[in-house]
Amino acid sequence: MRHPFDLTLYLVTDPRQVAARGLAATVAAAVAGGVTLVQLRDPDAHGRDLVAQARALKALLKPHGIALIVNDRVDVAHAVGADGVHLGQDDLSPQAARAILGPDAIVGLSVGTPAEFAASDLSGVDYLGVGPVRATGTKADAGAAIGPEGVAAVRALTALPIVGIGGIDAAIAGAVIGAGVEGVAVVSAICAAADPKAAAEALRAAISAARG
Amino acid sequence: MRHPFDLTLYLVTDPRQVAARGLAATVAAAVAGGVTLVQLRDPDAHGRDLVAQARALKALLKPHGIALIVNDRVDVAHAVGADGVHLGQDDLSPQAARAILGPDAIVGLSVGTPAEFAASDLSGVDYLGVGPVRATGTKADAGAAIGPEGVAAVRALTALPIVGIGGIDAAIAGAVIGAGVEGVAVVSAICAAADPKAAAEALRAAISAARG
Repeated sequence: MRHPFDLTLYLVTDPRQVAARGLAATVAAAVAGGVTLVQLRDPDAHGRDLVAQARALKALLKPHGIALIVNDRVDVAHAVGADGVHLGQDDLSPQAARAILGPDAIVGLSVGTPAEFAASDLSGVDYLGVGPVRATGTKADAGAAIGPEGVAAVRALTALPIVGIGGIDAAIAGAVIGAGVEGVAVVSAICAAADPKAAAEALRAAISAARG
Repeated sequence: MRHPFDLTLYLVTDPRQVAARGLAATVAAAVAGGVTLVQLRDPDAHGRDLVAQARALKALLKPHGIALIVNDRVDVAHAVGADGVHLGQDDLSPQAARAILGPDAIVGLSVGTPAEFAASDLSGVDYLGVGPVRATGTKADAGAAIGPEGVAAVRALTALPIVGIGGIDAAIAGAVIGAGVEGVAVVSAICAAADPKAAAEALRAAISAARG
């Protein structure tokens, strides 16, 4: 059985944006504000450092029943017993990840467009990250912004759970939820916020309002 | 039972140095010249690209009975069914790699000094890469050059198979073998050679002469 996960408000960490406050302190504040899922993303970190970071987050999240997802590094996810991995189109295939992590792991896949969706082998995929909704400075290799309409276009193609991602803040979160998806993923809106707890609360409020 | 491996002349690939000739063509020429083990190293490549590179090398090496080792990415090694992984001190632990790859995989570990050797948990490690023997431009984060004497200092501490690495060419290969190790690992001496086959032959000749 898959580890339970809730896409409602999905925090993706950024190493530079959390540097001043610290990774664990930022995530703890975000959890206090209502984050429901956390992805550790640090593409430049070495494996051993990522393992240490993931272990710290796992200890922090487990008492709250919040799942920890590791970006890209399936081997790191295995080493720390994370709940799952999130994979981009340039990463290992979802099937290769599943072969390492087993049937219980959560496997997420990034999809930018209906064409990319059509070209992806979705066997073993548990949810999709669809975006970027807006242009973002966080991820240099992200594609062109697709807007809430682009999210809706992928939504129409699949029953898989979807989280919109890319440049999402409280102002646009409602429109993304309005595209019919299960949640929104944010980076800067929480990691770069002066008050990550308040930022998470504002996002949760916007999501709740849009869900009606 | 471990996959068989022969450390005598261990080629570590460099993506920039093989770019003009191509990875597969360089490795094929090196194998024709007498390379006995190959490590795919491309620290900037994404997982999916690494998988494609590793598959191409595996197809090339398997008919020769030469083992393929993947640098750092244990998940990639698992995905392609490589014979093993080589880990630096900043990478996943050998034990974490073994847990993913199983009892048959070859697990190598880089060690720079007797102090680093003493600080390393060697359970599950099949061989050590000891160096850098000489200063090298290939690896920005390599430690200070230790010379053949430094290799001999680690040799004195363990019965594990050892390969000297770092700035090794045919001129110094004999001195490294003279330190009592099982083989030498090279990058530039083959990858940047005008004739990789001739370069490998020259290294094999130097190793044979030193073995007496």
